[in-house]
Amino acid sequence: MRLTADAIWTLLVTVRQQRPLVHNITNLVAMNPVANALLALGASPAMVHSSDEVEDFVPKSQALVINLGTLHSTQAAASKLAAIKANTVGVPWILDPVGAGATPYRRKAALALVSLGPRVIRGNGSEILALVERAVSGQGRGVDTLHDSAVALAAAQRLAMEKQTVVAVTGVVDYVTDGRRLAEIQNGHPLMARVTGLGCSATAVIGAFLAVEPDAFNATVAGLTVFGVAGEISAEKSSGPGSLQVALIDALYLLDREIFIRKCQYQEWVD
Amino acid sequence: MRLTADAIWTLLVTVRQQRPLVHNITNLVAMNPVANALLALGASPAMVHSSDEVEDFVPKSQALVINLGTLHSTQAAASKLAAIKANTVGVPWILDPVGAGATPYRRKAALALVSLGPRVIRGNGSEILALVERAVSGQGRGVDTLHDSAVALAAAQRLAMEKQTVVAVTGVVDYVTDGRRLAEIQNGHPLMARVTGLGCSATAVIGAFLAVEPDAFNATVAGLTVFGVAGEISAEKSSGPGSLQVALIDALYLLDREIFIRKCQYQEWVD
Amino acid sequence: MRLTADAIWTLLVTVRQQRPLVHNITNLVAMNPVANALLALGASPAMVHSSDEVEDFVPKSQALVINLGTLHSTQAAASKLAAIKANTVGVPWILDPVGAGATPYRRKAALALVSLGPRVIRGNGSEILALVERAVSGQGRGVDTLHDSAVALAAAQRLAMEKQTVVAVTGVVDYVTDGRRLAEIQNGHPLMARVTGLGCSATAVIGAFLAVEPDAFNATVAGLTVFGVAGEISAEKSSGPGSLQVALIDALYLLDREIFIRKCQYQEWVD
Repeated sequence: MRLTADAIWTLLVTVRQQRPLVHNITNLVAMNPVANALLALGASPAMVHSSDEVEDFVPKSQALVINLGTLHSTQAAASKLAAIKANTVGVPWILDPVGAGATPYRRKAALALVSLGPRVIRGNGSEILALVERAVSGQGRGVDTLHDSAVALAAAQRLAMEKQTVVAVTGVVDYVTDGRRLAEIQNGHPLMARVTGLGCSATAVIGAFLAVEPDAFNATVAGLTVFGVAGEISAEKSSGPGSLQVALIDALYLLDREIFIRKCQYQEWVD
Repeated sequence: MRLTADAIWTLLVTVRQQRPLVHNITNLVAMNPVANALLALGASPAMVHSSDEVEDFVPKSQALVINLGTLHSTQAAASKLAAIKANTVGVPWILDPVGAGATPYRRKAALALVSLGPRVIRGNGSEILALVERAVSGQGRGVDTLHDSAVALAAAQRLAMEKQTVVAVTGVVDYVTDGRRLAEIQNGHPLMARVTGLGCSATAVIGAFLAVEPDAFNATVAGLTVFGVAGEISAEKSSGPGSLQVALIDALYLLDREIFIRKCQYQEWVD
Repeated sequence: MRLTADAIWTLLVTVRQQRPLVHNITNLVAMNPVANALLALGASPAMVHSSDEVEDFVPKSQALVINLGTLHSTQAAASKLAAIKANTVGVPWILDPVGAGATPYRRKAALALVSLGPRVIRGNGSEILALVERAVSGQGRGVDTLHDSAVALAAAQRLAMEKQTVVAVTGVVDYVTDGRRLAEIQNGHPLMARVTGLGCSATAVIGAFLAVEPDAFNATVAGLTVFGVAGEISAEKSSGPGSLQVALIDALYLLDREIFIRKCQYQEWVD
């Protein structure tokens, strides 16, 4: 059944009421804004990284977010342990393959995690292409994308089918696909690309919705529309990327039903 | 002798004048806001973590803050070395046992540091309970508390007596006890719980007061009242947690005597 | 040829147009504000730290920034590998020797990187003195400086001559020297010293200019004047260090030619 803006709003109310514990293994740049985004949304974030404890912590959480920015070997190992544990105990998890195409090391680490079966993968165009294409060269430029999200849509659909997962390619337009259903989300604002860690925050917000909504496609659309609408509201009030970062956290906290329903812009097709 | 709001203000003036060097071994989420809180307060923060240098750095500082958020093995080792050195050279130190009840690894690390004799321990209700109770199960939910600070008060008093330290349990109401004296602080604002790293910042602010006030009970009350009053002022000016985080740093910097004396709300009892 | 404010502005326009990829190996406190400063300026930041990938990433970037705050052994190793690779492939790099005088470990690591030939070294007075003086004692107090930038000017000139590099000593007044040319920059605002990571951000901004301007002296003057003017603009609009941090990112993004030319204050002498 197609998701409506009303149904998304109900999911957000559920997050606010249940305050799901979202376990994040995320990068050093985005750790603070990701935690604040989750708190503002209504979730309870925890940043737990050590291989000495991730396996004990995963079962206590309602969702797990694995993000490969500022990757290093101990984090890669902890991420694998956490993903395996999440699969064992049935905790849904999402992968953000930051800069997957930037180096062979990073692509290999991302593919190793993809093979462990995340419920959702969210990346920009270059990152999603890097998970599908054979060659690394030309995919991405550091962590910024060189590819419009539409260019990576076919790759996203192929990845979703092959790995039986939900893939979100974000950019000016966001696409969500499970290989059969396809959603196109028009929310967000260009100034958001000038703030670091907002892609990582979007991934974490999807994680919070995964904690309350078993349908991973719906959870992903919910996370991206809510984050995109909050981004639009904050961009309207901001004079630059510094004030946008602050206003976005406020907007996630203050978001109300009437404004969300009015601004939420997505379309869905079923194959 | 009981602390007055006037005496606390004098301690803050001393921090501003002496600009004590506060050595922090703290977590990845809170590192930036903690450094900014200390700078805004008037102290000089340094974030020094490596086992290769903590023992050289501790003697240069006037206080040491050890925080277990985002714990990992190299940080745990460096924290122990730093605490031992601080004891040897007489630098006061404070422990923030973030998420102490969340995993066995984290509880064990916290207890190992408690046994090294911090002057002050500050945690939420669940964290303080985890340092006293035998069983780990049920204590804390990630890093958020499941327990009202009052519920942990008896545990705090027992911990303070047994370890001859000062224990602060923070929440809607903050309690400070050395097992004999007891302070209850009513400052702060509920919106502060929606910003990550504010508990860590409160701990660091207590650390700055420990650097200028040998009585650890008084230093703790001073830190929590100053931080709580700054939190109230910033909450009044904020539309959400994003703007509160910014306004709180400004409030710590701008805090003046007249407003502090008027807003400071604490009571003290002696057993 | 002497740099004019007009020429600096042209360099900033070039950064905005070319969006150079700036590879940062930087500290845990400043990582988020550094990335945001670079994005606001118009560059494309990447934070890549692992020894497993820095050598693959350096050739993709247009400049490399190495910052020793929150130094630890794996970061020190990765920094050396990255610097050597940058030299091999001709990527310009800048060193920020944070707290170089604070401990023997830190000074040794800084000197090891100095010996690898950075195009630019930027530090406060105490940090630059620590790279030149034999004794460590008394140089710096944590990461804050005990020395006015003017006191370290002779040391900066000696360092620049001996190492054939450009040295910037920043403080109330900033100095830039290559041993022959000397620039004095009067931009900036005292409140900036109350925000953590702004020295690190200034270094990264110089890095972005190094990516588009082969003359390292000119790139350094450009970076410091642009950053200083943005700091002044933001300080005028801020009530404290919290709001300054936000406004500074906005100011870097919004900076326009007319205001920059009017506010840019530097003088240059040639020996």
